[in-house]
Amino acid sequence: MPEKNDKSADAKAKADKVELTRHSLAHVMAAAVLKLYPKTKFAIGPAVDNGFYYDLDFGKDKLGDGDLLKVEEEMKKIIKANLPFEKSALPIAKALAREKKSGQIYKLEMIKDLKKAGEESVSYYKLGEFEDLCRGPHLKSTEQIQNGSWKLEKLAGAYWRGSEKNKMLTRIYGLAFSTRQELENHIKMMAEAEKRDHRKLGKELDLFVFSEIVGKGLPLLTPKGTVIRKELERFVLEEEGKRGYQHVVTPNLARVDLYKKSGHYPYYKETMYPVMKVDEEELILRPMTCPHHFELYNSRPRSYRELPVRLAEIAHQYRYEKSGELSGLTRVRMFCLADAHIVCAKEQAEDEIKNVLSLIDYANEVFGLKKNIDYRYRLSLGDRDDNKKYYKDDAAWEAAEGVLRSTLQKIKAPFFEAKGEAAFYGPKIDVQMKKINGQEETAFTVQYDFVMPKRFAMKYIDQEGKEREPIVIHRSSIGCFERTMAFLIEHYAGAFPVWLSPVQVKIVSVGAAHAGYCQKLAQEMKDHGMRVEVDDADETVGNKIRKAVAEKVPYMLVVGDREMASGKLAVRDRGEKQAREMEKEKFVEEVKEKIKERK
Amino acid sequence: MPEKNDKSADAKAKADKVELTRHSLAHVMAAAVLKLYPKTKFAIGPAVDNGFYYDLDFGKDKLGDGDLLKVEEEMKKIIKANLPFEKSALPIAKALAREKKSGQIYKLEMIKDLKKAGEESVSYYKLGEFEDLCRGPHLKSTEQIQNGSWKLEKLAGAYWRGSEKNKMLTRIYGLAFSTRQELENHIKMMAEAEKRDHRKLGKELDLFVFSEIVGKGLPLLTPKGTVIRKELERFVLEEEGKRGYQHVVTPNLARVDLYKKSGHYPYYKETMYPVMKVDEEELILRPMTCPHHFELYNSRPRSYRELPVRLAEIAHQYRYEKSGELSGLTRVRMFCLADAHIVCAKEQAEDEIKNVLSLIDYANEVFGLKKNIDYRYRLSLGDRDDNKKYYKDDAAWEAAEGVLRSTLQKIKAPFFEAKGEAAFYGPKIDVQMKKINGQEETAFTVQYDFVMPKRFAMKYIDQEGKEREPIVIHRSSIGCFERTMAFLIEHYAGAFPVWLSPVQVKIVSVGAAHAGYCQKLAQEMKDHGMRVEVDDADETVGNKIRKAVAEKVPYMLVVGDREMASGKLAVRDRGEKQAREMEKEKFVEEVKEKIKERK
Repeated sequence: MPEKNDKSADAKAKADKVELTRHSLAHVMAAAVLKLYPKTKFAIGPAVDNGFYYDLDFGKDKLGDGDLLKVEEEMKKIIKANLPFEKSALPIAKALAREKKSGQIYKLEMIKDLKKAGEESVSYYKLGEFEDLCRGPHLKSTEQIQNGSWKLEKLAGAYWRGSEKNKMLTRIYGLAFSTRQELENHIKMMAEAEKRDHRKLGKELDLFVFSEIVGKGLPLLTPKGTVIRKELERFVLEEEGKRGYQHVVTPNLARVDLYKKSGHYPYYKETMYPVMKVDEEELILRPMTCPHHFELYNSRPRSYRELPVRLAEIAHQYRYEKSGELSGLTRVRMFCLADAHIVCAKEQAEDEIKNVLSLIDYANEVFGLKKNIDYRYRLSLGDRDDNKKYYKDDAAWEAAEGVLRSTLQKIKAPFFEAKGEAAFYGPKIDVQMKKINGQEETAFTVQYDFVMPKRFAMKYIDQEGKEREPIVIHRSSIGCFERTMAFLIEHYAGAFPVWLSPVQVKIVSVGAAHAGYCQKLAQEMKDHGMRVEVDDADETVGNKIRKAVAEKVPYMLVVGDREMASGKLAVRDRGEKQAREMEKEKFVEEVKEKIKERK
Repeated sequence: MPEKNDKSADAKAKADKVELTRHSLAHVMAAAVLKLYPKTKFAIGPAVDNGFYYDLDFGKDKLGDGDLLKVEEEMKKIIKANLPFEKSALPIAKALAREKKSGQIYKLEMIKDLKKAGEESVSYYKLGEFEDLCRGPHLKSTEQIQNGSWKLEKLAGAYWRGSEKNKMLTRIYGLAFSTRQELENHIKMMAEAEKRDHRKLGKELDLFVFSEIVGKGLPLLTPKGTVIRKELERFVLEEEGKRGYQHVVTPNLARVDLYKKSGHYPYYKETMYPVMKVDEEELILRPMTCPHHFELYNSRPRSYRELPVRLAEIAHQYRYEKSGELSGLTRVRMFCLADAHIVCAKEQAEDEIKNVLSLIDYANEVFGLKKNIDYRYRLSLGDRDDNKKYYKDDAAWEAAEGVLRSTLQKIKAPFFEAKGEAAFYGPKIDVQMKKINGQEETAFTVQYDFVMPKRFAMKYIDQEGKEREPIVIHRSSIGCFERTMAFLIEHYAGAFPVWLSPVQVKIVSVGAAHAGYCQKLAQEMKDHGMRVEVDDADETVGNKIRKAVAEKVPYMLVVGDREMASGKLAVRDRGEKQAREMEKEKFVEEVKEKIKERK
C-alpha cells in the first residue's frame, strides 16, 4: 500500500531536529576555529546528509589531522559552556559595513548578492564570540547537543562557490546524528562500505581499470571483469528471450534530428555529447535508445496480432558527466543499458507492467535481493502545473498514473509516491535500491509513455481493420551494466556467487611433482564449462593458498601426493578453513548445478 | 607456395588485350553516338573492370533504354566496316583551337589542364568520322573485336569530374570480355548476384532496415537479423574462449591523444569522426581497438608465464565513409569487429600465427567455405622506399615478413605476395574471399606489429628477470559482423543453415481446429531451445505454405487432422516438395543436433 510520503510524521520531526543540530554544530565548529585561528575567514557552513561542514580560509596556514582534534576539544568546551544561539537583525547597509571592517570577504560577497536580490536586512546568529551571517534556524543552546552524537570527520579542499576559478578553501567535515548509537552505527556502516567500495575491490580483484590517456569516466573491463559482464548479459538475453522479448541491434549514434523529433533534445542537451558534422549530416551519440526502437517498429505496418512488440537491446548510451561527478563504475561517460521498449495496446498495459515487475523481481531474487528490505518501488508522478518539464495532457497523465498505481496495488508491491519525478513523456515506477552505504538509489525504471507514439506516428491495425495508436512502456531489466556491476561488487563484497565468479575453481599444487596432474584436472573441468585456474608457481603452498583466499574464489583444490594417489579432491569452500574430501565427479556435478541455477 | 604476383604471365597478356578491346569499344560507342546525335559533347571514356563507359553530354536530350539498342546497332555497323584506329599528334595550341572551334568544352578543359601540366603536344585517335583526344593505346582495327563478346549494359548519371558542383552527364556502360562465352558467364553471374544481393534479401527476409532520420550507413537490425548476429557473436566468443582468448570490454571512444600516441591519427584522420570537446578533454570515436587493448595490457606488470596474452573483444569501431560510398551492410558508418590482439614473445609469433590461421580456417569451414576455392591468402608486404606510409626499420620488416612467409609455407597455405599492402606498423596476411559477383575482397587480416609495442612501452619480464619487449599480432576471426552478415546472406542466398536461421521451424495449421495443437507443439520445441513460429492465420494452407517457402525456413511442419491424430510430424525440408513423416522426438533430435554442430 502506498505511503503518501517518503517519511512518516514522526520521522519527519526527528529529521528536522537532527538537521537543526547539524547546522548548529557548524556554528559551534566555526566558533572553535575562530578561537584557535582568529584570522580565519568564514565562507559557508551548511548541514548535510550525515552531519555538517564549514568552508574556511586559513590564509597561508595548512591544517593537519592533528589540528582537527584541537578543534574538536574546543568545540566540546563550547558545548559544555551551554551557550545560547542569539538571533539579531541588521539593515543591509550596516551588515556590509560590518563585514568590510572585519575583513570577512566571503560574507561581504554574500551580503552584496542578497542586496542585489532585493533584501533589505539580514539576520545574524551569535554564539559566544562568534557571530555569523545566517538565515537560521538554530537550536536554543548548545546543551541540546547530545554528548558523543557527533565527531569531526575529515579535512578536504573546496573551491569558493564550487568554481575552480576561485580560491581553494579548507572544508572541515563533521558527522552528527541524533544519538551516540546512531553515530556509531554510521561509522561502522561507512567502514564496511569502504571495505566493499567497488573502486577498491575492482582494483584488488583486477576487474576493471582506468587509463589517463583513454579518458576519464571510461572504464576498461579486464578479462575477469568481462566474465562478470558477459554472464550478466547472457542472463538478460536468456531471461528476456523466455519472456517474449525480441532482441535488436541499433546504432549508437544518429542524426540529431532524431532527438529533436522525439523531444529529448531540449531536455537532455546539457548532458549530450557535441554534434559531429560529417558529410551532409549532423550526428550525435545517443543518450537513449527509444527513438531507434520506434523507427524499427515503424519500418513496416503492424497488426494487433503482433502486439505487444517487445524490442530489447543491450544498448550503449552516452551522457556527458562533468569530471568532478565521475566515480568508478557508478558515474561514467558511456554506459550500457539492458533496455527495452514494449509497444502495446492501451488495454495490454497493465499486464505488460506486471510482467516487467515480475522480471525485475526475478532478477533481484537471483542476486539475493529481497523486496521491501533491499528495494521498494517509487511511483513517480508528473507535476501538472509544470508544463516546461511535463507534456501537457492532464487526462492522459491521470489515466497513466492510474494504471501504474492500480498495478502496484494489485500485485501488493511495497511502494510510495513522489510528485515531480516522472519522465517528461509520462509517469514511471522506479525500483529504489538500498546501497551498502545506506543510501537509496534508483536502479531500474518502468515508464508509461503516451507522448512518443504521437511524435513518431506509431500505429497498429486493430481487429476491425482500423488504425489505432499504441502506448509504449520503457523499461530496464537489470539496469545499466556498469552501475549494476558496481552494486554487485559491493553487495557481494567481491565474493561472487559461483555463476558470476571470474575464476570458479582454483587448483593449487603442493609441489612441482603435482603440477602436471593439476593441469590435467583443470582441462577436464574446463571441458565441463567451468572456469578454472591453476597456481603451480614455485612458491610455498601457504603462499598460494593465501593468494587464492584473497582472490575470493568460491572453491580451492589443494593437490598433493594424497590427492594424486586417491584421485579424490580436497575441496576448500570459500570462507572455510577445512577441506571436504570428495569424488571428482560429485564435485563437478555440484559446480555445474550451481552454474546452471545461477547460484 | 607463393606466386610472385597475382597473375601469371599468360593471364597478364590476356588481361592487357581485353583492356585494349574495352577502351577501343568506348571509342566505337562514341563514334556511334556522334553519328546518331551529332551535337553530343564528349567527356571521358575509359575501360573498367567488366567493360567500358563513356560520359556524354546530350544537351537537353534524354536517352532511354530504347536508344541504347540504336547505339548498339550503329556500333555493330562500325565494327563490321572494319575501321582502323589511326593515331596522330597535335601541338597543344592547335588542339586548343580545334576543340574551341568544335565546341567540345570537356575536351577543351582537359587540354588546358594538360597544358598547365607542361605538355606540349597531345595525341588523337581517329575512328571513321570520330576523332578523340586520347593517350591510347588501341586495337589496330575494329575487326579484332569478337562478335558477341560485348554488349551495352545501362544508362546512368555521372557528374563531370565526379563533383556534384558540375553538370550531370549521361554515362553509358558497356560490358566487354575476350569471348562471347565469358560475356554470357558474366551476365549469368551478375543475374545470380542480383538475386542474392544482401540489400534485396535483407528487405525481403526482414533482416535489417535503414531509417532516413537515424542516418545513412547506420543499419538497424530487426529481431530476425539480430538472431543471426547474436549466433555469430556466440560462435566467436565460444570458439575464441576454447582457443585461449580472454575477452575484454573497452570503451568505443577515447581521448584523441591515444591515437596520436599510437600514430594512427595521421594515417586515419581523414576517415575518423570529428573530435568532441567535453569538459577539459578532446574525445573521438575509435577507428580501431588496438590502443585500448595495449592500455589494458599495460595496466599491470606482466611475466613471461602469462604470455601469450590474447585479448579479444567484439568491438564497435567508427570510420567515416562518404555518403556516395555507403552500401547496405558492406559499407557502413559504424561497424563491429571480432577483434583481438595477441601480445607475445617474438619466439612465440609463428605458433600464434598458425593458431590464428587455424581459427580462420575453422570458421570458414563452418560457413562451408573452401580454402583455395572460396578464399586464399595474400601476404601483404611493406614498401621499404615509402617511409611516409611505412615505419622505417628495414631489419624488423625483413624479419617480420620472413615469419609470416615461412608460416604460410609450413602450413602449405595457398598464397600470393603483394607489395605496398601492409599496415604502417608491419606486414600482414590477408584472407582474400571470393564474392558472389566474382570480385575478391579482404575479409580478415592477421598483422605482425613491431611498432606499437615500442610506442606503448609494452614490456614483460623474462625467465631471467629481465625486461623485454613483446610483439603484437592484430587479427580478426570472422571479421566485421556487418560485412560478414552481408557476405553470408549472399553466400547462402538467404537460405541459412539451421543454426543461423532466424526461424528454424515454421508450423502451419491446416484449419482453425489445428491452431491450438500447433501452439502446443511450438512451445514444446521452444523449450528445447529451437526457434519456432506458428502460422495459424485464417488463410488457405497453400497461401501459408507459399509464405513459409518465401521466408526460406529450413523446416516446415503442416499440421492437419492426420498429424493431430497420429501425433507424428509431416516435415517438409527447405527446397523439397514432399514431406517426410517422422516421430516428433526424432525430429527434435535432428534439429538440436544441427544447432549444436552449427549446421
